[in-house]
Amino acid sequence: MTDRQVRVTFAPGGRVVHVPEGEKVMEAAAQAGLTLQTPCGGGGVCGKCRIQVTSGACPATEAERKLLTAEQLQAGWRLACQTAICGEMAVTVPHTSLFADGQQIVTAARPATEVAPAVRKVFVRLPAPRLSDGAADLARLEQQLGPLEADLPTLAALPHLLREGGFSGTAVVADGRLIDFEPGDTTQQCLGAAVDLGTTTLAAVLLDLRSGGELAVASAVNPQTRFGDDVLSRIKHAASPGGLEQLRQTAAAAVDELIDRLCAQAAVARGSIYEVVLAGNTTMQHLLCGVDVAALGEIPFVPPVTAGVMLRASELGLAIHPRGAAYVFPCIGGFVGGDTVAGILSTQLAELPGPVLLVDIGTNGEIVLACDGAIEAASTAAGPAFEGARISCGMRATDGAVERVVFEGDVHCGVIGDRPPVGLCGSGLIDLAAGLLEAGIVTPQGRLLPREELPAELPAALAERVERDTGGQVRFRIGPKSTAQPPIALTQADVRQLQLATAAIRAGVSILLRRAGVASTDLKAVLVAGGFGSFIRRSHAQRIGLLPEGLDHRRIRYVGNTSLAGAKWALLSTRLRKQAEDLARRTRHVELSTDGGFQETFVESMIFPASA
Amino acid sequence: MTDRQVRVTFAPGGRVVHVPEGEKVMEAAAQAGLTLQTPCGGGGVCGKCRIQVTSGACPATEAERKLLTAEQLQAGWRLACQTAICGEMAVTVPHTSLFADGQQIVTAARPATEVAPAVRKVFVRLPAPRLSDGAADLARLEQQLGPLEADLPTLAALPHLLREGGFSGTAVVADGRLIDFEPGDTTQQCLGAAVDLGTTTLAAVLLDLRSGGELAVASAVNPQTRFGDDVLSRIKHAASPGGLEQLRQTAAAAVDELIDRLCAQAAVARGSIYEVVLAGNTTMQHLLCGVDVAALGEIPFVPPVTAGVMLRASELGLAIHPRGAAYVFPCIGGFVGGDTVAGILSTQLAELPGPVLLVDIGTNGEIVLACDGAIEAASTAAGPAFEGARISCGMRATDGAVERVVFEGDVHCGVIGDRPPVGLCGSGLIDLAAGLLEAGIVTPQGRLLPREELPAELPAALAERVERDTGGQVRFRIGPKSTAQPPIALTQADVRQLQLATAAIRAGVSILLRRAGVASTDLKAVLVAGGFGSFIRRSHAQRIGLLPEGLDHRRIRYVGNTSLAGAKWALLSTRLRKQAEDLARRTRHVELSTDGGFQETFVESMIFPASA
Repeated sequence: MTDRQVRVTFAPGGRVVHVPEGEKVMEAAAQAGLTLQTPCGGGGVCGKCRIQVTSGACPATEAERKLLTAEQLQAGWRLACQTAICGEMAVTVPHTSLFADGQQIVTAARPATEVAPAVRKVFVRLPAPRLSDGAADLARLEQQLGPLEADLPTLAALPHLLREGGFSGTAVVADGRLIDFEPGDTTQQCLGAAVDLGTTTLAAVLLDLRSGGELAVASAVNPQTRFGDDVLSRIKHAASPGGLEQLRQTAAAAVDELIDRLCAQAAVARGSIYEVVLAGNTTMQHLLCGVDVAALGEIPFVPPVTAGVMLRASELGLAIHPRGAAYVFPCIGGFVGGDTVAGILSTQLAELPGPVLLVDIGTNGEIVLACDGAIEAASTAAGPAFEGARISCGMRATDGAVERVVFEGDVHCGVIGDRPPVGLCGSGLIDLAAGLLEAGIVTPQGRLLPREELPAELPAALAERVERDTGGQVRFRIGPKSTAQPPIALTQADVRQLQLATAAIRAGVSILLRRAGVASTDLKAVLVAGGFGSFIRRSHAQRIGLLPEGLDHRRIRYVGNTSLAGAKWALLSTRLRKQAEDLARRTRHVELSTDGGFQETFVESMIFPASA
Repeated sequence: MTDRQVRVTFAPGGRVVHVPEGEKVMEAAAQAGLTLQTPCGGGGVCGKCRIQVTSGACPATEAERKLLTAEQLQAGWRLACQTAICGEMAVTVPHTSLFADGQQIVTAARPATEVAPAVRKVFVRLPAPRLSDGAADLARLEQQLGPLEADLPTLAALPHLLREGGFSGTAVVADGRLIDFEPGDTTQQCLGAAVDLGTTTLAAVLLDLRSGGELAVASAVNPQTRFGDDVLSRIKHAASPGGLEQLRQTAAAAVDELIDRLCAQAAVARGSIYEVVLAGNTTMQHLLCGVDVAALGEIPFVPPVTAGVMLRASELGLAIHPRGAAYVFPCIGGFVGGDTVAGILSTQLAELPGPVLLVDIGTNGEIVLACDGAIEAASTAAGPAFEGARISCGMRATDGAVERVVFEGDVHCGVIGDRPPVGLCGSGLIDLAAGLLEAGIVTPQGRLLPREELPAELPAALAERVERDTGGQVRFRIGPKSTAQPPIALTQADVRQLQLATAAIRAGVSILLRRAGVASTDLKAVLVAGGFGSFIRRSHAQRIGLLPEGLDHRRIRYVGNTSLAGAKWALLSTRLRKQAEDLARRTRHVELSTDGGFQETFVESMIFPASA
């Protein structure tokens, strides 16, 4: 790879991305919001990520020659995980290579390494009882399945169910509990759901618990946002009369609705889902469980529970199988929750050659440093600026959002959905800020210069975009001039919000690195997580200081929604679930506010990096 | 001891019993319905069973000299467990030596050997969280208490409860589950209830789980009797629409009412009871749990569950502590249930020098033989004759019941409550039948002879009691002649009922002995259990064949309500609860109906033993 950026156009959709020469098409596609199927983990083995190069040179690799025919190769078919970008190119992604409706949900590239879930279904043919073999119904099942526990409703129904099927049928066991005995052989239908409980976005995936295969994905805005857009405002609302129950019900109903959509997509019945695994930040998890979160809102921010919690899904108000299970992820601390544990798990962070950093950029930013077997984690209140809130023209990364801003003499915008721009989403905000800094329109101190103070060499097209609003405040307009309504623009206040959000992440990273005696340039890898993380330009994120500067940006890797990925892993494997518990205990929680240097570091981090 | 029977009168109450010379006052008192406190197990160590001998010679033993002063000894004070009866005597039992309201409930003489219950309360003073110590609430508790599980409602309330008490208070842990955190130090109040679920009678005891002490006892007729007086009729009713739920609710409400009475007696709140342990026959246990019992009513009589079941008490509809636990005893087979396991446990049957037999005489008779480490158990449908049902003048052992019949030239009756007799209870029935057999009024074949066939040497007073009713049927009248209403009398049909009930037990005993190659005279002990068992005269029970003939009747011991005793043990000790599970698995269930010789043995057992 070189530092040369080349342009890649993706069809269908026409999205354009600029990526370093030498990068794999897979990663460029992810930047374009297209998540490809990678059941083999990008090893060039499964052939599921095939794409067609419609323009541009692209020699085939050995792996591609094995998996594709000469005709296919001739027609430009390649594997996205194998093909490196060696010049401007156009790529068509067939529907079959896409990870379901992957635009909003980005799962980790790493697939689960094993399928050995807590739920198992076993078809049995039991000997019918005789006078000489009067073993109890449950004991008769245990003779084939090993020791079982059973809830009262299952026990109450068991005698009837066993006899109805002539002592033949399918036992459903979840975490050692017999939860049903189904007529006939239903072992083919054994499903589970993994859920990422984000502060702003909920995402869920339906899994086949036999193969580990993904059957459906869905996401939705967390409707709790109407009670506040960050965790502290939710905690405050929970303290109001009836507030906690209101938040609990809102979250439960939203997750339940996601499960409905998963079932509709895959055309399966809810009753075939036997377990749900949920990962989210500490506050979201507790709110879903209806647990008092008042203490999370006050110093010293103590969570009620950090251990993983095994429940009946019905206790959470989730209508899967009536006696289905729910597992809520273990947490690390008050603001470092199950989503971070899931991230450490699904990236196998502690096993990577280190030091290595995991940064999950969300409304709450989480930062994890793994170094010589030690894992330290911190959280920092980035706020929802990167998700479009608190920015005057901010919006989520949906249709109409400016998600990419290119400075080339003037400003050129990429808009999601190829329609007139409506606002600015997080990745667009970062591009814009990086461009303004580089052009000298915003100073390292974050001052948006008025037109009269702009650098003399600035292209006129850019200079003309610096305006004053009717109140006399300076703004940088990115949309066309409009008289009907205020234009899409970045204000001085927006830059301040961005500084606060960026500084929060940056200070957290600095402190974790300083504590461990690691320079940012020593980092072997920086893994950027979060649905958001997949759409930002790494060099631009470095330019504004959001990601460590001075580090070869090729060491920065997108790992997608690691919270959802970790939830999937824990759903598919009890061993990995156990590992999550171990990781949660093993990770040291660094409370940034108790670090003597935090305030100073935070203030320093408010200054954007000097031009590279 | 000799075979000479001597008369002992007990005050208060004036009840008279005839016991073999040399027997301990303790056992004579038990026969008189007075259960004395024996925390030391009758070892002459605790001095709790002191009584006053008001008439009759009675030399003091060494143990008594140690525990009583010279003045006390002089005034006739003795220990009931030490003093042997050496002639007619009168004894006053002080209230303080009585086991609560022991008349109806007779608990095992053996107290629980240890107090290490599943419920523990621990007063803790936790360090308040600080920024430098941000452990989660549950983890903070675990630092002092070890690993805990917790239900959702407990987790939901924990943050508030901890902070309300300034991180000081009493943790309540039941079977490793944190079920509450109470303000202040409430460790003094830690209660549990043990319940015997009899087909006919329910009995319960309230225990202090710190000391093992009994705080209250209560009993009641099982209101399920209105749906049938034996288990088969209940099973039949359960199969009718809504029948199972009706039976479940009826049982739950009755147990709940018993718990109410226990709480009222001890003046404690229901919320201080944290666990209930229940033992009953297989059908009763399943009905209380609302589990389908249809299969128990059909060959091969397979129970749904034989393992012990751990539940929330609320699932059973029992209102103790809202998150309190309930443990339902393990069973052995379809008609050998938790009550038998409790009996094997509380008598430590398998540890006694053997062979040894345990006979629980109830509506369902259970027989257990322990021999050389092997335990075999069988059940036999004795029917409710010994509990007063299916006998023309039958009644339960309550006020007005003839509970003792003495043949001395004529018939003399002892009536419970010193009031005019109303009917005949089980022990009176056995006395009466034994007397009639001995006098030759009833033949070994069970024929009640008409007056014209009576032996010539029969006292006239007895002969006059043989009458014919208005239908010409022969009967033996025990009450005075009455013109107003039919007299209390035994009919030919009553004798047949008695034969059936006795033969059922006797055939079961015979078959178990035969299988093990043990002669009845080899038995080192016969333990007679059941509330009922404490009131029968052993030699009379032998005379009618209910208990093994030819065996020195001093080897027959009353062990009281061993079902309730076992439930207490399992409540007080997790080790003993575990032992109950082991015993249930270890005991071999002998299905009498599959024994080739059962029918023949049963028919043979219908013949009363020949005179000794």
